[in-house]
Amino acid sequence: MGGFAAVDVIRTKRDGGVLSDAQIDWVVDAYTRGEVADEQMSALAMAILLRGMTPAEIARWTAAMIDSGKRLDLSAVPRPTADKHSTGGVGDKITLPLTPLVAACGAAVPQLSGRGLGHTGGTLDKLESIPGWRAALDNERFLAQLAEVGAVICAAGDDLAPADRKLYALRDVTGTVEAIPLIASSIMSKKIAEGTGALVLDVKVGSGAFMKSLETARELARTMVELGTAHDVRTVALLTDMSTPLGRTVGNAVEVAESVQVLSGGGPADVVELTLTLAREMLDAAGLPDADPERALRDGRAMDVWRSMIRAQGGDPEAPLPVAKETEIVRADRDGFVAGLDAYAIGIAAWRLGAGRARKEDPVSAAAGVVLHRRPGDPVRAGDPLYELRADDAERIPAARAAAEAGVSISATPPAATPLVIERIA
Amino acid sequence: MGGFAAVDVIRTKRDGGVLSDAQIDWVVDAYTRGEVADEQMSALAMAILLRGMTPAEIARWTAAMIDSGKRLDLSAVPRPTADKHSTGGVGDKITLPLTPLVAACGAAVPQLSGRGLGHTGGTLDKLESIPGWRAALDNERFLAQLAEVGAVICAAGDDLAPADRKLYALRDVTGTVEAIPLIASSIMSKKIAEGTGALVLDVKVGSGAFMKSLETARELARTMVELGTAHDVRTVALLTDMSTPLGRTVGNAVEVAESVQVLSGGGPADVVELTLTLAREMLDAAGLPDADPERALRDGRAMDVWRSMIRAQGGDPEAPLPVAKETEIVRADRDGFVAGLDAYAIGIAAWRLGAGRARKEDPVSAAAGVVLHRRPGDPVRAGDPLYELRADDAERIPAARAAAEAGVSISATPPAATPLVIERIA
Repeated sequence: MGGFAAVDVIRTKRDGGVLSDAQIDWVVDAYTRGEVADEQMSALAMAILLRGMTPAEIARWTAAMIDSGKRLDLSAVPRPTADKHSTGGVGDKITLPLTPLVAACGAAVPQLSGRGLGHTGGTLDKLESIPGWRAALDNERFLAQLAEVGAVICAAGDDLAPADRKLYALRDVTGTVEAIPLIASSIMSKKIAEGTGALVLDVKVGSGAFMKSLETARELARTMVELGTAHDVRTVALLTDMSTPLGRTVGNAVEVAESVQVLSGGGPADVVELTLTLAREMLDAAGLPDADPERALRDGRAMDVWRSMIRAQGGDPEAPLPVAKETEIVRADRDGFVAGLDAYAIGIAAWRLGAGRARKEDPVSAAAGVVLHRRPGDPVRAGDPLYELRADDAERIPAARAAAEAGVSISATPPAATPLVIERIA
Repeated sequence: MGGFAAVDVIRTKRDGGVLSDAQIDWVVDAYTRGEVADEQMSALAMAILLRGMTPAEIARWTAAMIDSGKRLDLSAVPRPTADKHSTGGVGDKITLPLTPLVAACGAAVPQLSGRGLGHTGGTLDKLESIPGWRAALDNERFLAQLAEVGAVICAAGDDLAPADRKLYALRDVTGTVEAIPLIASSIMSKKIAEGTGALVLDVKVGSGAFMKSLETARELARTMVELGTAHDVRTVALLTDMSTPLGRTVGNAVEVAESVQVLSGGGPADVVELTLTLAREMLDAAGLPDADPERALRDGRAMDVWRSMIRAQGGDPEAPLPVAKETEIVRADRDGFVAGLDAYAIGIAAWRLGAGRARKEDPVSAAAGVVLHRRPGDPVRAGDPLYELRADDAERIPAARAAAEAGVSISATPPAATPLVIERIA
């Protein structure tokens, strides 16, 4: 019975039809239970990627993924809740300063995060470079920390949208990651099941993002905002630039260090700008429009929450971060301005240095990564350091350098400035 | 490495690109060895179905499937070899009289056949209703029987295009059967590996066929003729009608009995016509244009080869065939002419009676099936028998009757005659 019903569902989508509610409910549930096989779901995922889904199909698919597990109940948390999700980029450490900052302004942030795969980093991988810090929390401790500290960044439990967990791993190995209906339902099923009241989506656009074009990023953002709104989550999306890395660091420990700089009132201008912009959106959506995140950064309250948050999960916020054994500085070969600093190229370089993983089960290096001495638009002279490559193993450096060099260019005149926040969709 | 390379291949086809020879060789080989997983191959199959393949890709894919196993060497057979393949229909027992008939005219017929799945029957299932007959032959006995009797109908060995064996089973459960590049390469890889010198393809068109439209049937036929020709197999395709069942029987033992009638010089006109047309094409392609198959039917030589062929595989050609326990005759409810007798409806009815299987591992009933008392165009009077349903189990009859009734209609005037052979492609 399962085999035949699955083929019917696959054929319907393959031939450009619309899946019924009953078909969607059945196939998501049966896949979670193992009655629909991986090879059937991957054929369906490819058909969805190539044929698309209607808004109603996406909504039902998302609801079915939520219903595959448990929903968290955050009603006992004595503050309005707000969360953020980024579709993933290079040097995107924003969750690290943002979570304690928003908590310092009066909201509670239930940030269930993931690990990096491919050229994009993962928030949990970054935090694990802090000695002692643990990503796993059971529901009870998660709720207690959310109520007491107001900020949690941890791994999602196994009972949160298990259909998505299974499907995400399958899509990764079957060339079906890039389907907007599947990306939108994957992200939103987890965020809705997590129970947040407000959600700000940071949809990345550009070479370092999954969405390379503004059109597809906009479509994804609109789809997710509709899904959130339909489930009573106040949802806003910002399309932001990911053609160049965020900040001056790409890796794990190096991004934690840069985040701490931001929480100390310093840090690169683009990281500060995006952190504050997202914080204001989250606080607005959480019903706290009068909060002043700029001040909470300046007066140290955000840093206080950061320390409490790290300590609550076993980490030592004062401990020195791991340092790479090997460092190579790449210098400018002429005078001019940094014209291009391609996010994808730098992401691949960091990945080759050991900061990311090729397979889910691979370990990552805490200390590996890229530190940018110059950003696009900066003037340089021949011989000035452009960026440095850090690794535990010197053998990793040549391939990383080749990847990075392909993405860096120097021109005689400064490049046109590109806005960080491209569009807001609510 | 395997996982990443597979995703690259899938993405290339997903995005409408052309697979390189190296990609095709690698993915077919790695899938056969289990390095490429089922869920990766099914995603690729769906991408091929929706994006298509160029003639060069199909040729390379076919060659890779042939190279996944061994090629039979028929050079020791002291006659020209010719084979036939039908894309599958309802009541299509033509292989049974055709194989001994062509052998009786001087060619050797190395007919490696399959089993039925869904509403279409399988040649091996039909022959297994003959007491004692065995489908499995090792290569040595296969070659000996081909040299001595000139006719073999048996199951393909495990070493013949194993990639196709694995992929065929996968496509069946993933909604990816209907891809012309995959159908063409599946059929032709087996026929080329089997080593036949000439091949006649019977490409069915109509409700009871996999190809419902003339355009897709023509595309499939042309693709297969090109593949055969490129591999030095003299290949001809006929597009033939499958809007109504062939002959008066649909099932296993009932189709064997009808085939024996044809070999005795009798049998339904359409079965005789198609058998003789295909025999002439096979003999022409085998370089025996002066052979006279009509005479070989009439003078009993074809029947002699049939008996030898059945005996050589342990069967008793004189033994009574299994008879169904339950029979229900369906009669005309008015005077008129049989206007419609839909092949798909009758195929489903026979399948529900037990003649076919829902899963590969299911047994089939030898005695179950449908016997047609009237064919399209025949006059009927109210109360005349239209068809009878046969089953081992009376409980199977009502659902079968409902399926058949939906496909049978009586009109006041006779329907226009439809040609059996629609087109020839060489």
